[in-house]
Amino acid sequence: MEKASQTAIRILEAFLKLADERGIKATTTRAIAEEAGVNEVTIFRIFKDKENLMRQAYEHFSPGKRIVAYQLAIDTSTAAQTRSGLIECMKFLRTIFSEHPQLLLSGVRDYRRFSTLHDEMAFHALAACQLVTQALKQAAPMLRPGIDIESATFSLLGFLYTTVSWQHQGWLQMTNEKWNDRLESAIDILMAP
Amino acid sequence: MEKASQTAIRILEAFLKLADERGIKATTTRAIAEEAGVNEVTIFRIFKDKENLMRQAYEHFSPGKRIVAYQLAIDTSTAAQTRSGLIECMKFLRTIFSEHPQLLLSGVRDYRRFSTLHDEMAFHALAACQLVTQALKQAAPMLRPGIDIESATFSLLGFLYTTVSWQHQGWLQMTNEKWNDRLESAIDILMAP
Repeated sequence: MEKASQTAIRILEAFLKLADERGIKATTTRAIAEEAGVNEVTIFRIFKDKENLMRQAYEHFSPGKRIVAYQLAIDTSTAAQTRSGLIECMKFLRTIFSEHPQLLLSGVRDYRRFSTLHDEMAFHALAACQLVTQALKQAAPMLRPGIDIESATFSLLGFLYTTVSWQHQGWLQMTNEKWNDRLESAIDILMAP
Repeated sequence: MEKASQTAIRILEAFLKLADERGIKATTTRAIAEEAGVNEVTIFRIFKDKENLMRQAYEHFSPGKRIVAYQLAIDTSTAAQTRSGLIECMKFLRTIFSEHPQLLLSGVRDYRRFSTLHDEMAFHALAACQLVTQALKQAAPMLRPGIDIESATFSLLGFLYTTVSWQHQGWLQMTNEKWNDRLESAIDILMAP
């Protein structure tokens, strides 16, 4: 898959949808073909096998690369600017996590079963962790003195992963507006008084 | 399974171990029998079928019930007492989450595939959410004025779920001592100045 063709993307999307509903193992190439409205042979022609298809799905949809490409530059000239820089960064992560929550969850769900895909599956987590850590480090002059960056990173990341995945599971109902309020509170508590 | 016999527990433990390694779907009763050192017939005699075996595994090992049974009584007579009450509560959750992280993860991993087990699978999450919310409500007199309880709940819960599951995945190395430090920082930030 050099350039992602329309067909290839349709196949990857069908794969994601079915894998989310029934798990990767039970997602046969035949079912993918049916869902995508293509011939099963087309799948093998483009992706060779299911493992490669999975790898391409991660490559194409996983937030890892986009997280790494995020232009982080928190303006610490005022507390308000710092605060809004942190909020923007978290909202960015939320937006891309929410697009394909199943990719984050399948990192958990199927991690042990696909050892050759460990790097792809762990990438978004490490990238997100690094981005939040960097954001807090940049914001540090305006944060509470002596704040523990690693602790704050896991509180913010945890807030994000838990709310996004619980909403995906149907365990939590939270409007976007309310989520934004909760996020702002989580940031405010880190800011210097 | 009226009373959990030694054999029954051995079977449930074998199930958990294999389900964690290869997923629930691929964990056949034959493999469970082999792992537990029992005859496959014994499994059917005790548990009838795999779905019931899964239900019993949740009943027996899942932290939900123990979370509900936790005697929460945060002593808010001093800030130090309040702080240590919150820390104890979080350490309790961490201890029972760490015992069988695969049960928490399989709630994510296999949720959509086992709709008849939704209540069992979601129970620990709702119970943990409620416990942390209650703990923060009890502690409120010693917390920052105007603190957003729901936001703080998801920060603390998120911290817990993310660190426990990432350690289970091998994405994060953190000693217990360091985890305790990070947790204390996460609590300290909530306390009134």
